[in-house]
Amino acid sequence: MGPAKYPAAVTEQPETIRSFEIERFREGTRRAATDATAVEEPLEIRVGGRTLAVTMRTPGHDFELAAGFLYGEGIVRGADEIQALSHADDPRLEEDRRYNVVNVDLRRDTLPDLQSVERQFYTTSACGVCGKASLEALRLRGAPAIAPGPQVDPDVLRALPERLRAGQGIFEATGGLHAAALFDLEGNLLALREDVGRHNALDKLVGWALLQRCLPLSRHIVMVSGRTSFEILQKCLMAGVPIVCAVSAPSSLAVAVAREFGITLVGFLRGERFNVYAGVERVRVSSPAEA
Amino acid sequence: MGPAKYPAAVTEQPETIRSFEIERFREGTRRAATDATAVEEPLEIRVGGRTLAVTMRTPGHDFELAAGFLYGEGIVRGADEIQALSHADDPRLEEDRRYNVVNVDLRRDTLPDLQSVERQFYTTSACGVCGKASLEALRLRGAPAIAPGPQVDPDVLRALPERLRAGQGIFEATGGLHAAALFDLEGNLLALREDVGRHNALDKLVGWALLQRCLPLSRHIVMVSGRTSFEILQKCLMAGVPIVCAVSAPSSLAVAVAREFGITLVGFLRGERFNVYAGVERVRVSSPAEA
Repeated sequence: MGPAKYPAAVTEQPETIRSFEIERFREGTRRAATDATAVEEPLEIRVGGRTLAVTMRTPGHDFELAAGFLYGEGIVRGADEIQALSHADDPRLEEDRRYNVVNVDLRRDTLPDLQSVERQFYTTSACGVCGKASLEALRLRGAPAIAPGPQVDPDVLRALPERLRAGQGIFEATGGLHAAALFDLEGNLLALREDVGRHNALDKLVGWALLQRCLPLSRHIVMVSGRTSFEILQKCLMAGVPIVCAVSAPSSLAVAVAREFGITLVGFLRGERFNVYAGVERVRVSSPAEA
Repeated sequence: MGPAKYPAAVTEQPETIRSFEIERFREGTRRAATDATAVEEPLEIRVGGRTLAVTMRTPGHDFELAAGFLYGEGIVRGADEIQALSHADDPRLEEDRRYNVVNVDLRRDTLPDLQSVERQFYTTSACGVCGKASLEALRLRGAPAIAPGPQVDPDVLRALPERLRAGQGIFEATGGLHAAALFDLEGNLLALREDVGRHNALDKLVGWALLQRCLPLSRHIVMVSGRTSFEILQKCLMAGVPIVCAVSAPSSLAVAVAREFGITLVGFLRGERFNVYAGVERVRVSSPAEA
């Protein structure tokens, strides 16, 4: 058997960094700036033409990602089992979206039991797998755009990181845990949940709000301890949260969801500083320097 | 309709922190210590008795987690749709494992289309859903224990964080990206992959090794930029990696996988310091103070 084929279907390097116009808040000042984010786009992994998994990833090295995923799942046990790796030539897909689909052809005739690794989908028939389709899929699931308002004072935002950290009991003990916290517009901590999984911490917080019958969270701020991704914004959108803050960076798709659905997205909220990636109109002008 | 019922099926607070005996390396010294990790265990979410998802989580607030997950997926649109939340009374499950299963009864007769949110399983029929079953599932998938050896010099480990950071091109630009890197036993960087998803960065790295036909990685070190979880250890185990290092903390289940399958697990590898959570025999004694 010869080696597997990896056709050079993608002629250009995929985009891994995307820049946005943002507003940068420093000690009492505010100015427009450009900020680079890591690109997040869905990748669909097909085996023998059948969709096996869709994962949100940064484009690049996608053949490796597909091969490594299948190996980790025990579906492929060696390079010899891979006949070919290719980008989709599905004519229903727009050409520039085909790099978001990798097809793996195995040498075996019989496919292994694949059902157990099927993952969640963010696709639509309209344009296949891409960031735009992920936004469209949110709309189809009934995610409502967030209505304008309310506003928040910049000093309230600046106080959140310390309050988040103070509430992280398990993190304090272990140095390793994600947190999601709910604040009111004055910055009072209403609930905080911790988990090894970032999405779980947020699910717990939203579940709390659901069971307390206080959804939608239309006059609230959610703050997460790490980065913001499509999944984090999706969960906040479903819960009606107008202002989402994070200690660290957003992905490109997190910014896209926030802009599309009217969410104020704050990143790198540390000490006196923060960046606003979307919906800056909810951040009150509290001094002439911030106008 | 009355409010949903949340029976107090769990009488004790679930364990969220688990301590391990570890070896703590500081500037040229080594000593035994106890370190607390965040507990990671699988939670199975059932809707009307049918398994919908299994997610690795930190125990606690599991009814909220189930409710929030279903809300975020658009399956539940309000608290009124939930008839009851309960822990499993499945007699096939060991009693102390039943807290790892939450059953959601909906008021609707017809369940929504559930297939699209079914997630990956780490269960066995033997004891249901628990950390032990997750280890057993790895064994059933054919994960081989890592053979003894090779050894690595502590100074090689101390040099890795800077080399990892130097290779993180997208992180440098965006401040927000996970990385997984492959080193040889002398600490030379062989490959580095970045991604918004930690598991994707590692899948890319293993996929690279698979396509280069250099699996198993039995004389290599993998280092990841963040924390280590069950999933990270699972992927390293499948790839035959004897030494796994991370900038941040391991979860309890990461430690358990490492100990069960003979992986050396290093955490909090920063500057001159690191902790060894499993397999310390692979860390060479390079000075009397480290004996």
